[in-house]
Amino acid sequence: MNLNRRFLLSRRPIGTPRPDDFSLVQTPIPQAADGSFVVRNRYASLDPAQRGWMDDAPSYMPPIKLGDPVRATTVGQVHSSANPSYFLSGMGAVGLTGYFGLIEVGKPRRGETVLVSGAAGAVGSAVGQIAKIKECRTIGIAGGPVKCKRLISDYHFDVAIDYHGKSVTALSAEIATVAPGGVDIVFENVGGDILDAALMNLAPKARVILCGLICEYNCAEGKIGARNIWQLIVKQATMHGFLIMDYVPRFAEGGAQIARWIGEGRMRIDEDIVEGIENTYSAFMKLFSGGNQGKLILKIA
Amino acid sequence: MNLNRRFLLSRRPIGTPRPDDFSLVQTPIPQAADGSFVVRNRYASLDPAQRGWMDDAPSYMPPIKLGDPVRATTVGQVHSSANPSYFLSGMGAVGLTGYFGLIEVGKPRRGETVLVSGAAGAVGSAVGQIAKIKECRTIGIAGGPVKCKRLISDYHFDVAIDYHGKSVTALSAEIATVAPGGVDIVFENVGGDILDAALMNLAPKARVILCGLICEYNCAEGKIGARNIWQLIVKQATMHGFLIMDYVPRFAEGGAQIARWIGEGRMRIDEDIVEGIENTYSAFMKLFSGGNQGKLILKIA
Repeated sequence: MNLNRRFLLSRRPIGTPRPDDFSLVQTPIPQAADGSFVVRNRYASLDPAQRGWMDDAPSYMPPIKLGDPVRATTVGQVHSSANPSYFLSGMGAVGLTGYFGLIEVGKPRRGETVLVSGAAGAVGSAVGQIAKIKECRTIGIAGGPVKCKRLISDYHFDVAIDYHGKSVTALSAEIATVAPGGVDIVFENVGGDILDAALMNLAPKARVILCGLICEYNCAEGKIGARNIWQLIVKQATMHGFLIMDYVPRFAEGGAQIARWIGEGRMRIDEDIVEGIENTYSAFMKLFSGGNQGKLILKIA
Repeated sequence: MNLNRRFLLSRRPIGTPRPDDFSLVQTPIPQAADGSFVVRNRYASLDPAQRGWMDDAPSYMPPIKLGDPVRATTVGQVHSSANPSYFLSGMGAVGLTGYFGLIEVGKPRRGETVLVSGAAGAVGSAVGQIAKIKECRTIGIAGGPVKCKRLISDYHFDVAIDYHGKSVTALSAEIATVAPGGVDIVFENVGGDILDAALMNLAPKARVILCGLICEYNCAEGKIGARNIWQLIVKQATMHGFLIMDYVPRFAEGGAQIARWIGEGRMRIDEDIVEGIENTYSAFMKLFSGGNQGKLILKIA
């Protein structure tokens, strides 16, 4: 079937609809362009409500226009698309981890200071931008000057800290300089020295969201952990281990909010797409060398 | 590409993963069978968390088994399916209208009596079954003995009332006989005489959910409305006009619950599928003659 068959409303029914209130027309299949996509509808729901939409009367949605297709709920397949999708990045588990972790666990309040490690990464860059939308002050930690520059220019962090070549003491002092009152929320993606330095800079009642510990995933020698948890006591602070799984029922809600921010230009999502399943290993290893710029995705075929 | 290419974990990495911890193998594309479906993955997310799943250590999900594909979040297309989909019926707007209307507006309590009109229809049959799951007593109103029989055998209503050929007075008396204490919840899909009879049988503090008025959609002579709303005052009852739109952000949650009930055999969904867009008009008109058995769906192609 290479034609688009459409069932149109050609006249407003009076009382019971008649066959010639409608017409079935064939047109060429449209091409997707400019952010749109074309869906080939396979099934359409027929509902009593459709009768109401055929009348020119005030209702909860506008009447079907004469000459337009009869509106229906459908199930179909994407036929062609010119719409970027962020379902493996901003609107996927990664963006939603940032969203629900920060909002529901961190509960950021206007004016609070949020410290994010792995801040140029997929989760960290989302957290930084959402914290900014929530009117917090944001400090990002990343490795190297290129990433630190991107924290400021691309993700609008207020401060960027380069952790390369710094001891816990040096890092801790640097955080103390830019956040003399301490940080209210730590969104931790890295662990090790960076977490230890963050723990030395907690504000009273701070919330530490433990989301990832990438610095120890490849340690064959055992775990590093957190050496400065005594600071949790001193500051009456809490450390929350966070997994996105509890929030699966709210993915649609979170994804819609993130999509809205992307659409409004308030949130930027970067993707680093590597092509070919045969390149899986080398692509995966970029995560641990800090080689990827944006959410790492494998294009399989 | 007519082969299924899979990236397998062949050995558990020690520390940093090495290329020969993995292998890329090709197998024939599987055929979907018995409720399953085959997805052609187009993109895979590469995440630090995958490194953790490669270790044989207690975690929030089981380790990837040796010889299994490396687990990943993917975006793909359905390649073949042997799985029934209820996205235009039980898990679509229709089932969700029943679900959220009854649960969120009706707030049914165990032991309450729920009266449903259009009870053999797509929304009504869902409402009756959900009310039963919530341990309510259910009374269904439908047209004709065939539908009334199905209310009892298929949708487990406690009582079925056939409205055909009955006046408001007769219908009202019949409801009074089977619900002498009145009905706590009315889920109204039909309107007219049936709504008027229901209003005469409200329990104190009853909730009337006004979901549809199919009996007046094709009236060219003007609206019927509800003639007995004085009973709302007498019984301190409320009548809520209900649209599903407010609940769109909760569709995933409601759909998952309904899917669970279907899977457990506690909820039955009937579909009446008519094939061919050229049959849209005649299919649509079945809704108003009471000719469809189950949710009416048009199979377009």
